[in-house]
Amino acid sequence: MVERYSNTFISAPARELVLEEGFRFTHGQTLTPFTIVYETYGELNASKSNAILVCHALSASAHAAGRYTHDENDRTGWWDGLIGYGKAIDLEKYFVVCVNLPGSPFGTTAPQSIDPSTGKHYGSRYPWPTIEDMVRSQKIVLDHLGITRLRSIAGGSLGGMQVLMWCAMYPEAMESIIAMASGSAVPVTGIAWHIIGRKIIETDQRFHGGDYYDHGEQLRGLEVARMIGHMTYLSAHALQTKFGRRRRGDTRQFEIDSYFEYQGKKFAGLYDANSYIRVQAAMDEMDLEEQYGSLQAAFSKWRGKSLLVSFDTDWLFPVSASESVAGAMRSLGTDVHHERVSSTNGHDTFLIDFDKITPCVRAFLEGLNVPQS
Amino acid sequence: MVERYSNTFISAPARELVLEEGFRFTHGQTLTPFTIVYETYGELNASKSNAILVCHALSASAHAAGRYTHDENDRTGWWDGLIGYGKAIDLEKYFVVCVNLPGSPFGTTAPQSIDPSTGKHYGSRYPWPTIEDMVRSQKIVLDHLGITRLRSIAGGSLGGMQVLMWCAMYPEAMESIIAMASGSAVPVTGIAWHIIGRKIIETDQRFHGGDYYDHGEQLRGLEVARMIGHMTYLSAHALQTKFGRRRRGDTRQFEIDSYFEYQGKKFAGLYDANSYIRVQAAMDEMDLEEQYGSLQAAFSKWRGKSLLVSFDTDWLFPVSASESVAGAMRSLGTDVHHERVSSTNGHDTFLIDFDKITPCVRAFLEGLNVPQS
Repeated sequence: MVERYSNTFISAPARELVLEEGFRFTHGQTLTPFTIVYETYGELNASKSNAILVCHALSASAHAAGRYTHDENDRTGWWDGLIGYGKAIDLEKYFVVCVNLPGSPFGTTAPQSIDPSTGKHYGSRYPWPTIEDMVRSQKIVLDHLGITRLRSIAGGSLGGMQVLMWCAMYPEAMESIIAMASGSAVPVTGIAWHIIGRKIIETDQRFHGGDYYDHGEQLRGLEVARMIGHMTYLSAHALQTKFGRRRRGDTRQFEIDSYFEYQGKKFAGLYDANSYIRVQAAMDEMDLEEQYGSLQAAFSKWRGKSLLVSFDTDWLFPVSASESVAGAMRSLGTDVHHERVSSTNGHDTFLIDFDKITPCVRAFLEGLNVPQS
Repeated sequence: MVERYSNTFISAPARELVLEEGFRFTHGQTLTPFTIVYETYGELNASKSNAILVCHALSASAHAAGRYTHDENDRTGWWDGLIGYGKAIDLEKYFVVCVNLPGSPFGTTAPQSIDPSTGKHYGSRYPWPTIEDMVRSQKIVLDHLGITRLRSIAGGSLGGMQVLMWCAMYPEAMESIIAMASGSAVPVTGIAWHIIGRKIIETDQRFHGGDYYDHGEQLRGLEVARMIGHMTYLSAHALQTKFGRRRRGDTRQFEIDSYFEYQGKKFAGLYDANSYIRVQAAMDEMDLEEQYGSLQAAFSKWRGKSLLVSFDTDWLFPVSASESVAGAMRSLGTDVHHERVSSTNGHDTFLIDFDKITPCVRAFLEGLNVPQS
């Protein structure tokens, strides 16, 4: 990451929208009340026409950009390299909104939240959210802010899936979309690794079907499940050059083992197992082709401009996943640009290589500013 | 597999060699007494000069060829496609020996065996065997049979690693070697998956550090660990064509999930978790370069002929692993043929595509029959 992508700004704390009437999930359950956490950056103009919604991925939160002063962890937002003053999503021009999705453990009512009707954590009784639930929670926040039409909606991975779901559910709510490292359904390789990760978590008897919060200890199953993630993110080349068969210091422990333990414990300290399996299951269940009959049917009312960005080393959503979406959208006569980016960082390129994704995002958004005849 | 590889013969039950003095493991422990199980096929000639040792891989046993009549499971041996009357390792000519390795749960004294001094399963007290232990157990059986010089030693994967270890430990004990899908050390990708599999098993609290035999139930951790194996054996193409996003019947369960459950339960019913982690650790610890200073040093006394067979889709031991071994052996002036086989079956090609491995093995062994001047 070069210097210009690491400049940041001070962001305000996340805000809460409390739905006293509750939030009704796709599968029928309603949690009452329901809190949705979101953040905003930049200034909403008088006509409320300069808003961009960004959608976060599995392990991220509403904290998409900037740096807190009130938080001792002091981390910059997950898309800080792309969102900021003078950056591709330029806060001199745009008002950016990011909503913590239902199921995620970072503020929005989650499995680890206390159910006021019982005084206990929701745990296993928390619904299994869908991508549609995530999109509807974002729509609720935008309605609350009085934003009826967005300049754009952008996201990567699970975030990109939400973007595509917006095209199907609310095709008139935005002028354009930016979907990176994404597709209309998770291919079988991703499903298989998600399923194995879930089975690992459930193998930990302390998981107790999801009702483990009173035990206090970090779940080993989540630590180990996360190691699978690291194997699928790391290329064979990266494994060889970063670790090889090297041992840790004077011990017989392989360095890769030590790396796994560090990453697994760190992740399990920040994330929650019930959230992990629910958010991954939501990804796996989305399939626009199955849900709408065809991709053409899913995108039949979408008329805006689309930027699809894919990465040649992405194992989860290969380039062909964006090609399918682009093909369906083009067959309906809409304006689609598919940017194929070469990278060694695989699926996570959208979170790492800001120098590679900035030019196409900047050009795409600037193209929108040209008044349309 | 074509018809000629599926013809088989009736093999005798496995035999037991009981070492009353016990077996001393590399790391210092001695188990007394110690039983080694082995099988033989074909006839040993009068000069005891027609013997071939075959070395088995992780989940296999001493039952390398033929079909039992006494066993209701009635499975043919794991290398039956290669070993038989008229096959590449031709029982008309050769006497074949296969030894169940120390640590494996198929007859040789194993973690699940009863320790006569306590009346309980060895469990966590069973030593962590090395590849050297496996080779020495084979040497003991050959000494018992009065075989001082082998025509050849052959094996794939872990079996191939044993073959290479023979070249380092007993270079004068054989005329030739055949090592498939193998190398002088497991690359980091394999180590990483082995480590994750082990951590999954240990995540199952019923594992109890290895002392779980009294609980009776199959270990869920072993079932799930095995699923990782299937992911690494299956190519992305095979996953897509065999399963894709298909659901099972009228349910929402993905077919890949059902496949994992079937394979995991089947494997955990046959194999043992303590064996699984020990045999994989033995593979990971072998590193001829580290142990001898260099591959040249490891093979410095080896003068026989070598056939190395690698598979272009092998993720565990890539073609380059055989190239390194071939390079070191050639630099010492020995006769090496490296056969590169193209296959879609990855690492397991040596257990599946007998039509692809038969020609080079047959030609190699026939070449040995020419009297050497």
